[in-house]
Amino acid sequence: MEFTIGQIAQLLKGTVVGDTAGIIHSAAKIEEGKPGCISFLSNLKYENYLYTTQSTAVLVDHDFKPRKAPSTTLIYVENAYLAFTQLLEEYQKVTKSARRGVEQPSFLGENTQVGQDGYRGAFSYIGRQCQIGERVRIYPHAYIGDNVQIGHDTVIHPGVRIYDNTIIGAHCIIFANSVIGSDGFGFAPQPDGSYKTIPQLGNVVIEDHVSIGSNTTIDCATIGSTIIRAGVKIDNLVQIAHNVEIGKNTVIAAQTGISGSSKLGEQCVIAGQVGIAGHLSLANRTKVGAQSGVGKTIRKEGLSLSGSPAYDLTAHLRALAVLRNLPELEKRLQAVENERIDTANNAPS
Amino acid sequence: MEFTIGQIAQLLKGTVVGDTAGIIHSAAKIEEGKPGCISFLSNLKYENYLYTTQSTAVLVDHDFKPRKAPSTTLIYVENAYLAFTQLLEEYQKVTKSARRGVEQPSFLGENTQVGQDGYRGAFSYIGRQCQIGERVRIYPHAYIGDNVQIGHDTVIHPGVRIYDNTIIGAHCIIFANSVIGSDGFGFAPQPDGSYKTIPQLGNVVIEDHVSIGSNTTIDCATIGSTIIRAGVKIDNLVQIAHNVEIGKNTVIAAQTGISGSSKLGEQCVIAGQVGIAGHLSLANRTKVGAQSGVGKTIRKEGLSLSGSPAYDLTAHLRALAVLRNLPELEKRLQAVENERIDTANNAPS
Amino acid sequence: MEFTIGQIAQLLKGTVVGDTAGIIHSAAKIEEGKPGCISFLSNLKYENYLYTTQSTAVLVDHDFKPRKAPSTTLIYVENAYLAFTQLLEEYQKVTKSARRGVEQPSFLGENTQVGQDGYRGAFSYIGRQCQIGERVRIYPHAYIGDNVQIGHDTVIHPGVRIYDNTIIGAHCIIFANSVIGSDGFGFAPQPDGSYKTIPQLGNVVIEDHVSIGSNTTIDCATIGSTIIRAGVKIDNLVQIAHNVEIGKNTVIAAQTGISGSSKLGEQCVIAGQVGIAGHLSLANRTKVGAQSGVGKTIRKEGLSLSGSPAYDLTAHLRALAVLRNLPELEKRLQAVENERIDTANNAPS
Repeated sequence: MEFTIGQIAQLLKGTVVGDTAGIIHSAAKIEEGKPGCISFLSNLKYENYLYTTQSTAVLVDHDFKPRKAPSTTLIYVENAYLAFTQLLEEYQKVTKSARRGVEQPSFLGENTQVGQDGYRGAFSYIGRQCQIGERVRIYPHAYIGDNVQIGHDTVIHPGVRIYDNTIIGAHCIIFANSVIGSDGFGFAPQPDGSYKTIPQLGNVVIEDHVSIGSNTTIDCATIGSTIIRAGVKIDNLVQIAHNVEIGKNTVIAAQTGISGSSKLGEQCVIAGQVGIAGHLSLANRTKVGAQSGVGKTIRKEGLSLSGSPAYDLTAHLRALAVLRNLPELEKRLQAVENERIDTANNAPS
Repeated sequence: MEFTIGQIAQLLKGTVVGDTAGIIHSAAKIEEGKPGCISFLSNLKYENYLYTTQSTAVLVDHDFKPRKAPSTTLIYVENAYLAFTQLLEEYQKVTKSARRGVEQPSFLGENTQVGQDGYRGAFSYIGRQCQIGERVRIYPHAYIGDNVQIGHDTVIHPGVRIYDNTIIGAHCIIFANSVIGSDGFGFAPQPDGSYKTIPQLGNVVIEDHVSIGSNTTIDCATIGSTIIRAGVKIDNLVQIAHNVEIGKNTVIAAQTGISGSSKLGEQCVIAGQVGIAGHLSLANRTKVGAQSGVGKTIRKEGLSLSGSPAYDLTAHLRALAVLRNLPELEKRLQAVENERIDTANNAPS
Repeated sequence: MEFTIGQIAQLLKGTVVGDTAGIIHSAAKIEEGKPGCISFLSNLKYENYLYTTQSTAVLVDHDFKPRKAPSTTLIYVENAYLAFTQLLEEYQKVTKSARRGVEQPSFLGENTQVGQDGYRGAFSYIGRQCQIGERVRIYPHAYIGDNVQIGHDTVIHPGVRIYDNTIIGAHCIIFANSVIGSDGFGFAPQPDGSYKTIPQLGNVVIEDHVSIGSNTTIDCATIGSTIIRAGVKIDNLVQIAHNVEIGKNTVIAAQTGISGSSKLGEQCVIAGQVGIAGHLSLANRTKVGAQSGVGKTIRKEGLSLSGSPAYDLTAHLRALAVLRNLPELEKRLQAVENERIDTANNAPS
């Protein structure tokens, strides 16, 4: 697939400074560019690469002023990063043809309805009384239990496990080997030291436009529903416990865990390897730094938290700075103490 | 499925204060109750909901005294929480019918024996020389290697991988996509900087009444067995390395990792995202707080640990309190130092 | 399978002190040895077991001098640990016969080439335009997308998911349920608070002799490749984000996460539950301690890091020692302050 720089500029409504006839057949990062590639420059930290890159063309912001002559043709656009993303999307449409049809063998339970124009891969399993929307793609080895609803245009990747009674919206994507709706971790201690399993009778509800990474687990509620609101994006290897609710457009990075019955607000940003304790709430737009542990409810919106236990990011950074100097701090205290003793010893009696 | 409040009270050996004829068809948390639901009140922190809940009936402890008139019928029982759990179990028995029989295609290796009244889902795979007990349910896409033993009434969920020579007891449950018995992480450094794989020839032994969550991994031993004792409960995304032994009735929350050859005692409680280093032991009833890192053997029983590295919980909480005030502490030290210098400067010579 | 001590000594080029006719049929740790077992003694911390073990023979280093008479026959070898490893390998060759052939049903896409003498398990899925080398073993329920290349003698375990365009070298092993090449976590925030998915068009390239544990996830690059160099060893439940590069012979323990676009050098050792932030580099032979969080580029080779955020291991250990004594430190400061006040109060006016 080849395009001229002129064609690309036209698509992106950009202005070319350089050779409009140059041929582009691939995309690359500016520091890894090769002839035939297009790249973008958004963060000026990378500006130096503009003068050495081998990429045939580079997208730049409309107000960018090069310090010297670039080694490549420039395409000026409103926002170089977004334009590059748009280009990738167009490229994806042309190159990644979505699978269609039914491969055999595949399993379809009784009383299940499947919409048109979708895909069911070989060895996929769909249980009884399910409602599968139009254009839904279900990849090989996916397992869908009984009484599951999946909205139109949703994609279920290989090896995903969806337990009975789960409800999934439209335009969602769930990547390989994630597990939706297995039992919450609930046990009642018995007098003899053993534990009795508390039945987990609820389900998981996932609204529209949700993305869930690979090998992530979302437990069903004990009673009621574990809820993932519209537009939520969840990365790989994340744990969402029973009865959790994740607010609209909240983003959760890899290996984070949310304990039972906690509620996250809208547009929160939770970094990687964070732990959030059970039965608490985070207000809208709360930001939590990587590896933090949140142990209490946050009522004020828009706070940035860090540390384990987590508190105000700025205060935590200040404490960390002193933490490193603790041995020095102790020496200083020792010096004061020694002097005090010297003074006492030398005091006139 | 509908019951009267009177029928439920009879089942739970409770006493009704209010309308015994009310109809119950579902269960809900007291704060989310709707007409037709039954809820429970155990933690008095939630007592206020008793006066506003729309639930038709609420289970309360036998010695509970309401502060004012509740908005609903009360059922007094010995222990409201346990009675509610019992109710959920009864409900589950009636509503969740266990799967039976064999779906096709499924794979059964030579010389394997499968007990009666079980379930083998479509696309399930059972290898050679296996012994599968009675009423064992093996869901679609489960993989069971060669020479595996599984005790009666155990349930293997979709996509679980059980490697050769694993031994699993009775009444166990393993949730979706967990991996039992893959190789331990053992490599011998070579003079050229590469690593040579150390063969992992042992297996995994899981005793009775063990529950294992989704996407959890338990490695086989290098030689001998990785052992999970009876009654152990393991959550999602947990890592158990080679040659580990987990004592009876110990509970391990999500995303925790136990390194090679460590031994946990009985009735330990390990919270989420904990790391336990290799080749150490934890005494019976050790409690480890979330995100802690245990780096040494704990010989005394019943201790509570916290922090990374973990030590006594109370001492750690005290240190954390000061930690937040470190910048303030440094200022105080600075003040003392400054004054000392002032004093020195002003000292009579 | 039985061998005499003499046969084993001959295989390992060792010297026997004791009974060369003793019969060995199994291997065990020295502290768990039983008659018929062979064990090894490498770390002298375990020397006491040499005088009580029931193992029939124990491998010891060529320069080992027992403090008293051992309870067992000794085999002196150059390096007891390596000799034991060699013995396990020989044992494995004899006992673990590799699977061969094709089980049905299995799925093979159009225009895919599969080399000779391999294994394709029941319910395995291989897409279109793939190149599978000789003696490759693909276990049941493994999914291989379109246009994937796999080098000779590589083993793909049950339930592994390999996305389109992935390239895997020779002599690799990928354990159960790991996911190679699912989408990186990239979203562009929109004015209305929602997120737009950034197409992930790159792939994953895995070189020769790489080992990847169970339930691990390696994301494809946004553009270009996520690269795992030759000889890398990755444990279970590890997250490798898009555009990461892991240098030759680097080792990564369980539950660690590497954020997007970071580059690890050669022969690094990353312990368990470590987090590495995005867009940074670690120099060759960097060592990172368990649960650490690396937040900046490390340019100097061979450093040992610890803490979150991570810095020099020795300095961190010193700071941790004071950290525990923080409450005590505060009391000492308080004492100095009090005395100062007393002095001020008692000062001659």
